[in-house]
Amino acid sequence: MSANKYEEIAQAAIRLFQQKGYHATSVQDIADEVGLQKGSLYHYISSKEELLMKIAHQSISGFNRRLEKIIDMEVNHREKLFMAVQTHITVVAANMQMTTVLLREAFSLAEPHATIIQELTDRYLDLWTRIIDEGIAAGEFKPGNSRLKALAILGACNWLYRWYETDGPLSADEISKVFADIFLDGVAYHKPGGSIPPS
Amino acid sequence: MSANKYEEIAQAAIRLFQQKGYHATSVQDIADEVGLQKGSLYHYISSKEELLMKIAHQSISGFNRRLEKIIDMEVNHREKLFMAVQTHITVVAANMQMTTVLLREAFSLAEPHATIIQELTDRYLDLWTRIIDEGIAAGEFKPGNSRLKALAILGACNWLYRWYETDGPLSADEISKVFADIFLDGVAYHKPGGSIPPS
Repeated sequence: MSANKYEEIAQAAIRLFQQKGYHATSVQDIADEVGLQKGSLYHYISSKEELLMKIAHQSISGFNRRLEKIIDMEVNHREKLFMAVQTHITVVAANMQMTTVLLREAFSLAEPHATIIQELTDRYLDLWTRIIDEGIAAGEFKPGNSRLKALAILGACNWLYRWYETDGPLSADEISKVFADIFLDGVAYHKPGGSIPPS
Repeated sequence: MSANKYEEIAQAAIRLFQQKGYHATSVQDIADEVGLQKGSLYHYISSKEELLMKIAHQSISGFNRRLEKIIDMEVNHREKLFMAVQTHITVVAANMQMTTVLLREAFSLAEPHATIIQELTDRYLDLWTRIIDEGIAAGEFKPGNSRLKALAILGACNWLYRWYETDGPLSADEISKVFADIFLDGVAYHKPGGSIPPS
């Protein structure tokens, strides 16, 4: 079995699942896209579900791995949150189709796949929550519901898959700076002395 | 034609599109759900696409209408942004299935429906951007890319459809307060005098 051919099939599936949706894409569509007979395609994959699972698994595992590295870095928590936002946005912008399949299509997975992806997604939220918690413990961030704050930040960053234009005027870096600035300091001017940490 | 029966069909379609996805739901599934023969269902609707369009149109139009009312209110822009966040989150939390159909399934619409929904969605983003722009003009909000800031805030609020639990511990009001606090003032403590508006 050729690893290259398998990768070509996975890339075709990403394109088709993003464009038409998982349910509207047939195994025949995928076979046509890579120039194979449907019977030959089954030498490489056992089912359409297997492809969706591999795509979703690769995508969410990559997000987790990158964020784990950031958490282990020796920088302050402002910087850590900035890097988390920048890395997530850079990955979404560079992998729009794959991220769309993860975020829009993975709900179609059957068990046990659905639970595996859900656990990896929960793990990703846990990592974001940990950055906020550690920032609170370090006296850099304000106290409050860290999981809810992580969901706000992660939601904003995930939503990029809906509006980011690969050929648009804004780079992932420019978007990251504006987003991180909002999450860290908000859109409003602050009242003098209104938000100083207790000493 | 009974308006009640039509409404019952629309509610069944919302449930099925949310649970199985639009493509995986057949007209037969919808007929079964409301206890009609498939032929009789076609007395009420012309197609599955028509149902998806009506659901998406009703949902996004409601978001627009509510935000237009908030924009016209005589309050400051902090308060306006808070109310926009609170209203959006309250509507998503109270209409999780319908919002999921709008945000996850409407990409399956064909033309001219796709363009109509896209224009109403663009209009909604314009309204959020306007709140930020007017807050900047009033000296309440910091200058910057207002559309990008609106996309961050709206993305975070939209993402609720993915994680909000109707029977969970957090009310829409509690979530709104945490979210609006992040968008207005950020998660970090601010350096004394670091973010005072220029006078």
